[in-house]
Amino acid sequence: MMVKLNEQNREQYEQLILDTLEAGDRKQFLDTFLELHPTDQVDFFIKLKDDRRKRVYDYLSPEDFSHIFEGLDIDDQKRIYQELDEPYSSEMFNNMFADDVADFLEAMTGGKAEDILQKMDQEEAQEVKELMAYAPETAGAVMTKEYVSITSTEVVSNVIDTLRKDAPDAETIYYLYVVDEVERLVGVISLRDLITAQPTETIENVMGTRVVSVDDDMDQEDVAQLIKKYDFLAVPVVSKQNHLIGIITVDDVIDILEEEATEDFGEISAAKGATDVNVSSFKAARRRSPWIIMLMFFGLITAGVIGQFEETLEEIVLLAVFIPLIMDSAGNTGTQSLAVAVRGLALGTIKKGSIGKMVRREFGTGIMLGLICMAVLAITVTIMYQHWMLALIVGFSIFCTLSIATVIGATVPLIINKLKLDPAIASGPFITTVNDILGLLIYFSIATALLDFL
Amino acid sequence: MMVKLNEQNREQYEQLILDTLEAGDRKQFLDTFLELHPTDQVDFFIKLKDDRRKRVYDYLSPEDFSHIFEGLDIDDQKRIYQELDEPYSSEMFNNMFADDVADFLEAMTGGKAEDILQKMDQEEAQEVKELMAYAPETAGAVMTKEYVSITSTEVVSNVIDTLRKDAPDAETIYYLYVVDEVERLVGVISLRDLITAQPTETIENVMGTRVVSVDDDMDQEDVAQLIKKYDFLAVPVVSKQNHLIGIITVDDVIDILEEEATEDFGEISAAKGATDVNVSSFKAARRRSPWIIMLMFFGLITAGVIGQFEETLEEIVLLAVFIPLIMDSAGNTGTQSLAVAVRGLALGTIKKGSIGKMVRREFGTGIMLGLICMAVLAITVTIMYQHWMLALIVGFSIFCTLSIATVIGATVPLIINKLKLDPAIASGPFITTVNDILGLLIYFSIATALLDFL
Repeated sequence: MMVKLNEQNREQYEQLILDTLEAGDRKQFLDTFLELHPTDQVDFFIKLKDDRRKRVYDYLSPEDFSHIFEGLDIDDQKRIYQELDEPYSSEMFNNMFADDVADFLEAMTGGKAEDILQKMDQEEAQEVKELMAYAPETAGAVMTKEYVSITSTEVVSNVIDTLRKDAPDAETIYYLYVVDEVERLVGVISLRDLITAQPTETIENVMGTRVVSVDDDMDQEDVAQLIKKYDFLAVPVVSKQNHLIGIITVDDVIDILEEEATEDFGEISAAKGATDVNVSSFKAARRRSPWIIMLMFFGLITAGVIGQFEETLEEIVLLAVFIPLIMDSAGNTGTQSLAVAVRGLALGTIKKGSIGKMVRREFGTGIMLGLICMAVLAITVTIMYQHWMLALIVGFSIFCTLSIATVIGATVPLIINKLKLDPAIASGPFITTVNDILGLLIYFSIATALLDFL
Repeated sequence: MMVKLNEQNREQYEQLILDTLEAGDRKQFLDTFLELHPTDQVDFFIKLKDDRRKRVYDYLSPEDFSHIFEGLDIDDQKRIYQELDEPYSSEMFNNMFADDVADFLEAMTGGKAEDILQKMDQEEAQEVKELMAYAPETAGAVMTKEYVSITSTEVVSNVIDTLRKDAPDAETIYYLYVVDEVERLVGVISLRDLITAQPTETIENVMGTRVVSVDDDMDQEDVAQLIKKYDFLAVPVVSKQNHLIGIITVDDVIDILEEEATEDFGEISAAKGATDVNVSSFKAARRRSPWIIMLMFFGLITAGVIGQFEETLEEIVLLAVFIPLIMDSAGNTGTQSLAVAVRGLALGTIKKGSIGKMVRREFGTGIMLGLICMAVLAITVTIMYQHWMLALIVGFSIFCTLSIATVIGATVPLIINKLKLDPAIASGPFITTVNDILGLLIYFSIATALLDFL
């Protein structure tokens, strides 16, 4: 009988498992709990109270529990790890995927990682150490060691037999990687092709030799874009000598793409590293305040710019009224162009040859937006304030400001990207501030020049 | 011999293919060109000149060309379709995945879609029509019809034999879906489990019965989140009666997630639908100008607010100098909170129970940010302008403004989401404008109240 998990019967089923746990019925608990998808096991486990969790450690083998531990986020992992006794956790780490252990250990402080590695199996510990040696966010750091490799002289039916035994340990068996006698990558065959091949054929005759692979120091975002482009389920990672050293699977790529989108998102909104919902007010304020204070100092520069025109302002106070309008229009237009550039870089649609084209496009857009806004504003201000000279100043300022704002919004992230600097300094608020200052300079300069006519 | 495709030998290899094309050597062309991965075939094809493209249609069968056509973006598809003669294109459509044909036909106007459908095979055309009947961005609209289904009474070894024949037509064979006599979904078995099962076993005994499936009217973003959560390679789509009607594969999910991230990105930066790099200046200006003009009118409201305090401003012009600072701080803080809320909604980390917690968190963060900024500003303004009363007004205004700005930034997108309105109206610039107006109201009200002391 099939149990389709939806909101209602999920609750029912979880209650059923909970009952077996309360009753202390080990066998019934294992029967029902292990029926769940690992992801659902994690959801169930993390909602349990302290003493119930302890019972789970008691009932589940370290191997079964390792799948739950892999699914927890890092803060929960740290907390749960404290609750496990030493032989149990060591055995659990031995059963986890090496890349998940590496991620956990990298978050440990005070020599704890060394401790854990020492108590693990030598072979497993070695794999974890290798992964931890790579720079963060490179292919080497995100790859997994659990892949299936075969040699080109094997026969199809034998390979299928081997798979029957090896499958449970590998992260994916849908691509088999073919290596030569010194572990160099020479081919690939999908399980699909393996199944459809003649059982008596040798691998050499059925494998694909045009293998797309990535170097271990490739940026994780580039790897993700590659897998996305080719619709791969996994991609092999090779060393400089073309030795196969790991694979990156599509589910990790989804996480990488989401992570990068969140980063870009933080940059455009000055909330870099602070879009996490699960941190305290205090922590959030501490992470965000440097940005807000820095931007406040930019605000003081803007104040200084306006201060230079105090005389003009004293002559005609009405000018102050349009400060927000000039600022907002400059900021909004610049941010639009920024979004185009940042998104284009992230998706790889902006390439070497097309940068000039993109900037010219943005400049053209700015001029057109400027013309439209100038016309609308000139009419509105004349009607609202019966002051055609003011309308002219405001309108012409908007035209100049918008034309420049698009170019600044589009080029700054490209320059930052080219210089390989942290793109955070090209964030939305920064560009907005630059455009604010430029816009107000243009506005008050025009107003001052035309002061006699006001 | 393996040819690893990197930047250098890719160029060389492409030149090789181009030479066979120029020489008119059909056999050599097919030998070299069909060796390429379909994605690389697309890259090669789209760079060709008119007469060379014509030669490709000549050399490639409609079936081989169908993989190239699937990989083109919609604008290129339209252009290329014009170049194909009718029997060739009909045969090409017959060989394409039904969901790709549906996407193409939905972009056709003037009864052209009907025409094309009529000239296709009846069975293929029927599948395409079914897909086109679903609302856009639902599971039904993005699913594919090319899956493998089996019945529970079959024997493992027979299923593997069948796969040998069926595999080339299916989009994925890594999950096999088990249906009963009326096509209701009753189980699933991965190719991995099939391979490791005893060849003589019946499917019933080896299939998983706890199948996670999605309804045909489910939002595509929810489907994507589900696949991401469970690390699936595909998910089955069922009708209200639990009939299996299609599948959605992980490569489509990656595209959906990127599409949704781009949408969110456009919303936060007022560039909704305009982050595409490949449109003309004119088109970009037309798409973006409604936003900019609407926001400009908000700027006029802000102008009106300041206008109310013209007397206060005339008394002390120096107040105008801090308008940008108040506005920027309110805007930046609000946008940070907005990013937290929008990203939390997109990633599903904000759930029913945690909304109150999140808003309280943001309010707490706002108060703390406000206190810090008040302290920094009061000191700086006192030093810069030797005017402690002005420092007090600016500092206290910042405190009030930031405390409120976080709450507005966090709650508006939640309300919008709850009301199922277009989240575009909760975009960054909108919240920034609301916060601007509030901030300036607070600032000038405090200043007016304390006017006698200035």
